[in-house]
This record gives sequence, C-alpha cells and structure tokens, in this order.
Amino acid sequence: MAWSATVLTLFPEMFPGPLGLSLAGDALKRGAWSLDAYDIRNHGLGRHRAVDDTPAGGGAGMVIRADVLAAATDAVSPADDARPRLLMSPRGRPLTQARVRELAAGPGAVIVCGRFEGVDERVIEGRRLEEVSIGDYILSGGELAALVTIDACVRLLPGVMGKEVSGEDESFEGGLLEYPHYTRPRDWEGRAIPDVLLSGDHGRIARWRREQAEALTRARRPDLLK
Amino acid sequence: MAWSATVLTLFPEMFPGPLGLSLAGDALKRGAWSLDAYDIRNHGLGRHRAVDDTPAGGGAGMVIRADVLAAATDAVSPADDARPRLLMSPRGRPLTQARVRELAAGPGAVIVCGRFEGVDERVIEGRRLEEVSIGDYILSGGELAALVTIDACVRLLPGVMGKEVSGEDESFEGGLLEYPHYTRPRDWEGRAIPDVLLSGDHGRIARWRREQAEALTRARRPDLLK
Repeated sequence: MAWSATVLTLFPEMFPGPLGLSLAGDALKRGAWSLDAYDIRNHGLGRHRAVDDTPAGGGAGMVIRADVLAAATDAVSPADDARPRLLMSPRGRPLTQARVRELAAGPGAVIVCGRFEGVDERVIEGRRLEEVSIGDYILSGGELAALVTIDACVRLLPGVMGKEVSGEDESFEGGLLEYPHYTRPRDWEGRAIPDVLLSGDHGRIARWRREQAEALTRARRPDLLK
Repeated sequence: MAWSATVLTLFPEMFPGPLGLSLAGDALKRGAWSLDAYDIRNHGLGRHRAVDDTPAGGGAGMVIRADVLAAATDAVSPADDARPRLLMSPRGRPLTQARVRELAAGPGAVIVCGRFEGVDERVIEGRRLEEVSIGDYILSGGELAALVTIDACVRLLPGVMGKEVSGEDESFEGGLLEYPHYTRPRDWEGRAIPDVLLSGDHGRIARWRREQAEALTRARRPDLLK
C-alpha cells in the first residue's frame, strides 16, 4: 500500500494544489503516494449544510461542530485506521523533522484542516486528533499547514525525490542549520568562493562546513544547541 | 498601493494556488492585495536555461547560481524597492506572528523560493536576502513556505477576513495558546460543554478561558512562557 493522505477540509479544491506539480506531483501521478481531499460539508446540517455554530460562552467567530466533524472523520477513517489523525492548529505541538520522519515511515495520515476560530474540543478528544502546528503564526485555515506537512513527508518516501535528497547534510538532521553553499562562477560581483572549498582537501572542507554550520546555528538558533 | 507580493520561483504555476480561493482569493480578485510569480528560469543560462550548478567543495545536490538569481531579483525588485526581500529557507530565523504583523503593515514582500540544496551564499549577501524559516522541517522547495507566509500576512490586511479575525484571543497574540472552544450541541457522545461556559457570567468565563490557555501553554509549549 502506498503512503496515503486523507485531508478533511472545507476547501477540497485546494488539493493537491502545489503538490500536484514538481517531483511530488510526478510521484502522485504514478501512484507512489495518494491524496484524497474530503469535504467536511458533506456532513453539514440542514438545507445550508452548516458546519459551524457560535462559541459557547460568547466571543468572536464560529466554531466547527463536534458532531459534523466526527461524522466526516468517521466516513474516511474507521476506528481501526492505522494512520494517525492530525488536526492542523496553532495550538498543536510544533512539527519537527523527527516527527516528519515518523509520519513518512508509517502508512500515511488523516489530516483535519481547522477554519474559523477552531473546532469543538470534544471532537479532538473523541476522535483522538493530534494537534500539530507548523509554526508560531496564524493562517487563514489549516489547508496550507496540511500541504506543508504532506510535502515534508512525501519528499522522504523512497524514489520520490531521486538523487535530490542528500539527507544527512540537511538542516536539522545533525541538529544544526546547514552550512553555506557556493557554486560557479568562482568570482561574482567581487565576491569569491572561499578558498578552502576549491582546495580539494576533503578533510579540511568537511571541517570548515562543520564550523560554519555550528557558527550559523549559534548565531540564529541557539535553541537548537541546547 | 495595495500590499504586493512578488515571488521568485522555478514553479510559477504553483501560484496563487490555494491563495486564489477562499477569502484571500476573493481579496486578490478585488485588488486588495496583489501577487506576481516570476520564473527564475527567465534568467537561466544557455540553451537549457540552467539555473543551478554543482556545489563548490563537493557534495550531493545542486546549488542555485548567484548570477542567475541576482538577475531575476533585479528584474522584479530594484535597489530602491521598499519591500523586504525574504528567502524561504530552513536555515532562516523562524517566522513569528510578530514578524507577520510587521510584514503585513508594510508595502509587501519579495519572496525567493529556494530549491535543490540551496542558493549560492553570495547572492544572499549581495541582494540582502533575509532568510526566513516557517518551521523546523524540510520541504521540497520554498514555494509552500512562501504561500504560508503570504497567507499569514494577507489575512491581517484590512477588510480581507471581514469579521472572522478576532485578533486578541488568538494563539500567540497574548503569548499563550488559545483556550478550548465549544459549540452546540450541549451534549455530544456523553461529553458536555463545561458548565461555566453556559453560566452567562462573563467574568467567570474570561477567568476560566485564561486558566485553560495558561494550562495548555504550560503543558504543550513551556518555551512560550519564558
């Protein structure tokens, strides 16, 4: 079975979107992974298929109903679904490359996209939704967060990126940000490629890159060094 | 002048993508903001319009050339462009809601999408590109990160989200994750809306929400409380 993503959303037309192009899109077309976008509104209530209602206790915005979202979740992810169920939300635990590796190594993911003020807390508990945040900022909905999460996973699937994924040297893989890159031309606007990179001395080059990565991480992301 | 995003990418067909739909898309259509996706390959070299070359010093993958990316940048963002130039990269400083507010309050942004192993360090220096990361994971390219950044900004522009943006109560705005939401029905699968939210006592409700937000933040994101 190919890695399988099912997305629950009020905007199914946003999928596959950018994931239908480039290497992820090629891999999708040849069945190396699958993507199903399911409209939560299929389970909306009444003539207008309402999915949301006003927040209990007052306040701005609307909240997605537990009964509606649970019915949509149950329609695509039975109780014995082996895939984790993620809810994209700024309240979630931050997505990390380690979690991405776990997800990519599993059977896939069911991903719920929040909208409006959020979703009723009871469906998070009742359907064991794991709240995941892609960063400390607010989006207009969970759809872009779902696309980000899926992209990060899909590029790790065997054969998707071909030789493009170098893996070990990437940011976060060694707990460090990546060292600076250079390519031709040797001189550009008075800026030269550092001599060490042209020395042919692989030991020196590896040491220089390690030092650069450490210095950059110390300067920009001391939190990663703890 | 409306808020204006110019994206430099090897995949211009990924834009506006999800941003062409929903409220951001409506606002785009009526000119409340503008989006221009510019193909870096317009400045590629030779018959194949090459944009990348092998990394100096060896290693896997390809690096986007400084001369090619600088020419593309200069074509869309003259030296006196008031907009900040961002480079989406996992090596960047993490995007925060505070930075999003700054960007949204300004004239717009020029956003460079990295691909492959990265871009030549000299163009980052020479064109003063500000490296920005949307999170601690690796994407197949900067395009989804650009879409995320633009979405976070656009929803803050006046009139884009209408009454949907409640602002103050959102995650991060008060340094806390958001409290749990509930809506009808009052009882669902044996789970009831907490009594306090049905009490009509606005002081008690506000205190309860604050306590919930603090407890959630302590449990999930103690780093935010520092």
